[in-house]
Amino acid sequence: MDITLTSGKKIPASEEMTILESLGREGIFLTSSCAGKGTCGKCRVIVKSGSADSKAKTKLSHEEIGRGYVLACKAFPQSDLTIDIPKESVLTIEGKIATEKSKDLQALFAASGAELDPLTERTLLQLPPASLDDNISDLARLKRGLDAHGLSCLNVPFRLLKNLSATLRKERWEVTISSIHTEDCHEVINIFPGDKQAPRYGVAVDIGTTTLVLYLIDLTDGKVVDIASTYNSQIRFGDDVITRIVHATEHGELANINEAVINDINIMLSLLMKAHATDPDTIDQVVIAGNPTMTQFFFSLDPSSIREEPYIPTANTFPISFTGELGININPNTPVYTFPSVASYVGGDIVSGVLASGMHTRKELSLFMDIGTNGEIVLGNSELLVAAACSAGPCFEGSGMKHGMRATEGAIEDVQINRNTLEPEIKVIGDAPQPLGICGSGMIDAISEMFFTGIIDQKGKLQKDISKRVRVGEDGLEFVIHYGKDRDIVLTEPDIENILRAKAAIYAGISILLNELGFSFDNIQKVYIAGGFGKFLDIEKAIILGMLPDMPREKFKFLGNTSVTGAYLCSLSRKLREEGEKIAERMTYLELSVSRSFMDEYVSGLFIPHTNMDSFPSVKVLMKK
Amino acid sequence: MDITLTSGKKIPASEEMTILESLGREGIFLTSSCAGKGTCGKCRVIVKSGSADSKAKTKLSHEEIGRGYVLACKAFPQSDLTIDIPKESVLTIEGKIATEKSKDLQALFAASGAELDPLTERTLLQLPPASLDDNISDLARLKRGLDAHGLSCLNVPFRLLKNLSATLRKERWEVTISSIHTEDCHEVINIFPGDKQAPRYGVAVDIGTTTLVLYLIDLTDGKVVDIASTYNSQIRFGDDVITRIVHATEHGELANINEAVINDINIMLSLLMKAHATDPDTIDQVVIAGNPTMTQFFFSLDPSSIREEPYIPTANTFPISFTGELGININPNTPVYTFPSVASYVGGDIVSGVLASGMHTRKELSLFMDIGTNGEIVLGNSELLVAAACSAGPCFEGSGMKHGMRATEGAIEDVQINRNTLEPEIKVIGDAPQPLGICGSGMIDAISEMFFTGIIDQKGKLQKDISKRVRVGEDGLEFVIHYGKDRDIVLTEPDIENILRAKAAIYAGISILLNELGFSFDNIQKVYIAGGFGKFLDIEKAIILGMLPDMPREKFKFLGNTSVTGAYLCSLSRKLREEGEKIAERMTYLELSVSRSFMDEYVSGLFIPHTNMDSFPSVKVLMKK
Repeated sequence: MDITLTSGKKIPASEEMTILESLGREGIFLTSSCAGKGTCGKCRVIVKSGSADSKAKTKLSHEEIGRGYVLACKAFPQSDLTIDIPKESVLTIEGKIATEKSKDLQALFAASGAELDPLTERTLLQLPPASLDDNISDLARLKRGLDAHGLSCLNVPFRLLKNLSATLRKERWEVTISSIHTEDCHEVINIFPGDKQAPRYGVAVDIGTTTLVLYLIDLTDGKVVDIASTYNSQIRFGDDVITRIVHATEHGELANINEAVINDINIMLSLLMKAHATDPDTIDQVVIAGNPTMTQFFFSLDPSSIREEPYIPTANTFPISFTGELGININPNTPVYTFPSVASYVGGDIVSGVLASGMHTRKELSLFMDIGTNGEIVLGNSELLVAAACSAGPCFEGSGMKHGMRATEGAIEDVQINRNTLEPEIKVIGDAPQPLGICGSGMIDAISEMFFTGIIDQKGKLQKDISKRVRVGEDGLEFVIHYGKDRDIVLTEPDIENILRAKAAIYAGISILLNELGFSFDNIQKVYIAGGFGKFLDIEKAIILGMLPDMPREKFKFLGNTSVTGAYLCSLSRKLREEGEKIAERMTYLELSVSRSFMDEYVSGLFIPHTNMDSFPSVKVLMKK
Repeated sequence: MDITLTSGKKIPASEEMTILESLGREGIFLTSSCAGKGTCGKCRVIVKSGSADSKAKTKLSHEEIGRGYVLACKAFPQSDLTIDIPKESVLTIEGKIATEKSKDLQALFAASGAELDPLTERTLLQLPPASLDDNISDLARLKRGLDAHGLSCLNVPFRLLKNLSATLRKERWEVTISSIHTEDCHEVINIFPGDKQAPRYGVAVDIGTTTLVLYLIDLTDGKVVDIASTYNSQIRFGDDVITRIVHATEHGELANINEAVINDINIMLSLLMKAHATDPDTIDQVVIAGNPTMTQFFFSLDPSSIREEPYIPTANTFPISFTGELGININPNTPVYTFPSVASYVGGDIVSGVLASGMHTRKELSLFMDIGTNGEIVLGNSELLVAAACSAGPCFEGSGMKHGMRATEGAIEDVQINRNTLEPEIKVIGDAPQPLGICGSGMIDAISEMFFTGIIDQKGKLQKDISKRVRVGEDGLEFVIHYGKDRDIVLTEPDIENILRAKAAIYAGISILLNELGFSFDNIQKVYIAGGFGKFLDIEKAIILGMLPDMPREKFKFLGNTSVTGAYLCSLSRKLREEGEKIAERMTYLELSVSRSFMDEYVSGLFIPHTNMDSFPSVKVLMKK
């Protein structure tokens, strides 16, 4: 049985395998935020001919079903099929958008003052040939040759000894060694015949609860070659870390949860390697940043003690591990550096983020906020670093939102609504003519604008008769942000409630943290905002929404995904890795949930911008206008 | 389809699987020196009922075939079978014989003056329970606890982190850590809940070209718990190292050759663990001694450069490796220590042997001979150590000999022939009533006695009419050493030729080595003889045979298998491991094959005792009597 794609390509299929699986086997990966449960509606394909048994129809309209739409994760071919895969369903890499990001990242690295000194190095050696007069073993010859390069203590893994004899002789005793400096010795990663000093790459990965982002970095110049991102397939074991821990510990699913994220990383790596025609042997190192639970799952560590008092993770610092022992499909001896965690709910992603912000080096008191599925906040400067956590949920990453998507090409990232016509004007990442969905920054813009134009009230309820764009959809009232050729992009009332709950949690977290430490908003000189919202976050609109405190706008700085930025920086510099480790040692953790006023603050934040309008004086002024 | 054993046990079988394979799957392993090629005739079983398709009949007499004998490696069941497995066909372990050997080994270790300081150690820890006031990670708690025991630098492999959380809590924070001190750090091998300081075992292995011997050692007191031995299954890729290297390099069989020896080790381990009801987790360490080619095959290293000028092995020294990366079926993180080699044809088995002999510590000039498939000779003392190699072939280990067997229970190890009646009197290892075959020391005795009683002439030819025990067998003339109930034990004329070739090579090797270094037999104050001959080697008879030089008898000392003895010693003591490493550094290698007189010496040695009777004055005297 075959599936024919619009490109004409034929792929093998069977009645027992979903369309999603058949495509995956051929290296065509679809986006999916429910990881194949049939609930997110993101892996839509259109069956043009042939018949498929479609077991789930969630998020498909009657009209779409009529036009042949099925969810690839729940559709089984019953005959040869011809299918069309809409662009929004395909998992892609960033390409030219990455090139732009690379400029900023390279500038940030240059500004750090650190030298290009990656985790790993490559050394070219010309060894003297073996002879009866110089007949030491191949390994002894290699070590003797490396002595001259200061690599005097060297461990060669047995896997590499296997072909050492042939490798040394292949290019007449010229070899390139890739190695990593661990503890007191250099561990050899790979041995290549001839001069293979370039190309060589590093990989930096942010393992988010909802989203995974992977940078492919040229280690010879620090350039970001490309970026891949995908939803974390662990979502099928729950949206939040607690539900996943329950699955791991009470349902014996730890191995499957681990496999899900490893498989996602392998998919991203294979997309990048294919797109850039790179060989797995050119990847010399991996740097990982993730929250404590994501990190434990990445290593398949039993997470049960994280969830119960006294909330103990297996480890907060991790020695260098190797891809082979983790199941990552590149050279098995590639070293994996993992950002240290601080406490059970403040992890390597925050350490990485603080490093990227630079707040730990400055005297001024700053607030760092990383708005992911879990919202983490750090207050501090070069002397103090206190972290706290509050749960925001995955909505800003597009998960659980009808037309939500990650901030990748095709996402609406900016929305303005005309005060008179109530017609929205949108900006799409990559300037795509047809938007595919809406990302976090677009949602914040849209809701703020809808509030300002009266399309929603302070509780986020849509006003039925204000515009023909407010209509009744499958999930109740919805607002059409964009009329599309194939489908419209909307924000539904449940979507808006989702966002309000998230922003309330974040604002409450900041308030309580400051309060507990005896500070007020006035003491803060800088606010760094991190998160996968898109390239820009409109601070003004985030304040109107009540997600950010009403402070002078120039104090805010939006940094994007700082977890992966920190991982990028550490990929390139030993000095910055050491700085990250010091951040983890210095940072202390404050548990917010024990504060009695947290729930009050949260409930007050469910209004736009806030129940207590006095804390939003500038919004009050704007509203009067 | 079933096979029923005489014990009544039924095992599953099929038409596609040999009887040998079916038995192996149930943990019943048969002896085989051809590793299933159907040529050695050692895996004989008797089909009592049912029918089997027998593809090879080598070494089975017509009478035996009539009685139902088949070679298990070439016989396929065609119906349900009932079979009887003769005792000589079963691979067994030594049991009480090991207990006797253990006394000698423990005495040798005590005499070395070294302390009991195995490669690995176990440490019992009672950690303070985690609490909100003391909420460091599990790993940090473990490391803090170990600091007090001087294990301040500690690597815990990721595999063990997986269950660390549960392990620490299972016995209320009491744990036992097994670890190895490598380079500057301690590598954790295993973590057990509760007090598991004993039992704990080490394994010492001699990987011979023909024979593998494995000691299971109690690391708490140095006792040898038991011993297993088997033929090296690599024999199916050739009897000698060169043929196996050709198979590995030219026929792409390296992986299979490696798998053969690893599988043999796994079989021996499973027999020992079953017999002593030990758990794989109680085995903390493995020490390996083998010749350079055996060591390369053990690690699956490409051996091609060993065979060609300038004869370079991949490595002579090996860092600690771990069972998991080698395929040995115990706890995958068990460390494997490997004896260093000296040159392409002088390996860790000889370094280990010299260590066991102690010759390297004494001023007197000694000769060390290890008579295995390859015969190695070392001349030296506390200042000089020169090694040479000569090929003896596998006959002394029973391979290639009609009724040859290793020196294990049931082997004839001592033969005396009555000068008048020409009736032999035998001694059997373990005092078994029915001998199963004849081992190296028995062969030397028998041939020497046969020569002295005129049963064979100086060329080793049997004298037809001298005794009714000289008869015509399947392979020509043979001498019946023992009339058995089921089968007779004989030495055939080809067997005798085999032994003469081997002894000639050894004697020639010694002569040339001494000559090249400007010494004579008179300069030698001690001769240490190593090899798997049996418990005793009759020096007198070995001199009569012309295998050993005609020197005062008190200068000789028979040491048995010194390769495994050295591995035993190093299993127990860091000091002795360091001593072994120094031996490898000190020892130099002399290539004998380049000597022009080697072939002359070899040919002269094909007579009993030698063509030049003047070099055997005491034998001359004896013969005159």
